[in-house]
Amino acid sequence: MGLKSLPPRRELLAAALGFVGKSRRLILSRRRRGLSVMRKADQTLVTDADVAAERLLRSEIGKRFPEHGIVGEELPGVNLSSEFQWIIDPIDGTLSFARGIPLYGTIIALHHRGRPLLGVIDHPALGECYSAAAGLGAWVNRRRLRLQDLPSGRPVEDEILATGDRAHFGRCGRERLFDLLILGHPQVRSYADCFGHTLAASGAAGAMVDYGVRLWDVAATEVLIQEAGGRYVLAERIEKPKSGSFYGVVFGKPRVVDWILKLFALSKPPPASP
Amino acid sequence: MGLKSLPPRRELLAAALGFVGKSRRLILSRRRRGLSVMRKADQTLVTDADVAAERLLRSEIGKRFPEHGIVGEELPGVNLSSEFQWIIDPIDGTLSFARGIPLYGTIIALHHRGRPLLGVIDHPALGECYSAAAGLGAWVNRRRLRLQDLPSGRPVEDEILATGDRAHFGRCGRERLFDLLILGHPQVRSYADCFGHTLAASGAAGAMVDYGVRLWDVAATEVLIQEAGGRYVLAERIEKPKSGSFYGVVFGKPRVVDWILKLFALSKPPPASP
Repeated sequence: MGLKSLPPRRELLAAALGFVGKSRRLILSRRRRGLSVMRKADQTLVTDADVAAERLLRSEIGKRFPEHGIVGEELPGVNLSSEFQWIIDPIDGTLSFARGIPLYGTIIALHHRGRPLLGVIDHPALGECYSAAAGLGAWVNRRRLRLQDLPSGRPVEDEILATGDRAHFGRCGRERLFDLLILGHPQVRSYADCFGHTLAASGAAGAMVDYGVRLWDVAATEVLIQEAGGRYVLAERIEKPKSGSFYGVVFGKPRVVDWILKLFALSKPPPASP
Repeated sequence: MGLKSLPPRRELLAAALGFVGKSRRLILSRRRRGLSVMRKADQTLVTDADVAAERLLRSEIGKRFPEHGIVGEELPGVNLSSEFQWIIDPIDGTLSFARGIPLYGTIIALHHRGRPLLGVIDHPALGECYSAAAGLGAWVNRRRLRLQDLPSGRPVEDEILATGDRAHFGRCGRERLFDLLILGHPQVRSYADCFGHTLAASGAAGAMVDYGVRLWDVAATEVLIQEAGGRYVLAERIEKPKSGSFYGVVFGKPRVVDWILKLFALSKPPPASP
């Protein structure tokens, strides 16, 4: 099944937004009635709502696109040899979700041969849904996102830089980059998980640096940032035996991204050890 | 005018919630129609909405309690010799507000001879209003807050610690404490400003450490945390010539607050030898 036999991207995006609308209602209703929280083998958290939302998304995708592959955080992949892969994280920021911090989100993306066609990050508790499709633009709810680059006279120091948790940088031995940011810039805030991603897409943060993240954490971000007018850089991909790939990404306003990459280059990290 | 001639605390709290309801509508409407953002002499930001909200709050307080004092972030104090002082920060987190990050809030507190009678932190964009009055309890909207201390078997490492920006710690030369937290605990997040305060009040964060803050930034927090069942510690008060008092505060679940204070005490540089 090739790209040409797919429905147009606008229809695919509408389908993805429909899936996310259903998971949003499920997540908000589970949150209201109380959660059961468990710890996974890798010590991260999962709730019954994570698993229920992923099952719902998989069922919706499977009904509409039965031949497509699905990769999700909480359950095994299906149709992994398909050219089309839906990549989903039903609740990104489960720690926030479980604690009642409203900054979690649902991530859903469709990739064709590894290239993103569309991406959605939905924040159920904030009532904000970010979406983009390659070549069509990016939106928050119905408002078009048009990221303005930092004007050349404005100092990068005026911008907020978002990062993931320092412990996430530690998953691939890159705590030093976190410390470098903290010491090198006056306004670094750990707006972890997809909340930082959407702050960068809207321009509220000048850029985000996220390290030690997995495929499903970043699957929607590249197309969202690029369609908004920003720059997305895969800075590192680190393979760890048994646990797989961890990514280091920098994205946001082009001048701010450049500034961060220069800061990192000047500090010359040693080559990654497995 | 003494404490006994005041209306009961429940009525005072209802009055404060009424004031905040009006400022909330003003702030949300200004946010929608666009802001003009200026930089103050101390290089922090102020918007036309900050000033308009403070004028509105002052006018409401002045109509209802004409003899009371009012101290606010953006305008000069009035009736400063009164035993009763309203302390207001119309928009705490102006940087977030100006950038479209929904985590800012309005702070309003009433102190009697320096002791807090009531405190309100309202998050207009989140639809969450935190309030407390001494002896009466604490609430978020209409839900009573009852902070559970960390059970003695549970490691402090499982809790999220909130902090202000590292640059705020720098206002009183305490960057080292920020760095100590970051290195000493795996889940430190810079949930700056009053959003971190309300996360600590709800128990979503185990505790918050906020340094380099002013009176109006913390005026509502002590009563809110204590009435929720938590511990509030004024760790430092630093006088700076010309700019006045800066505070360092630690608050949240008692066991987590103790853990932080011990971490800070252990790190105290030894006294200079003669």
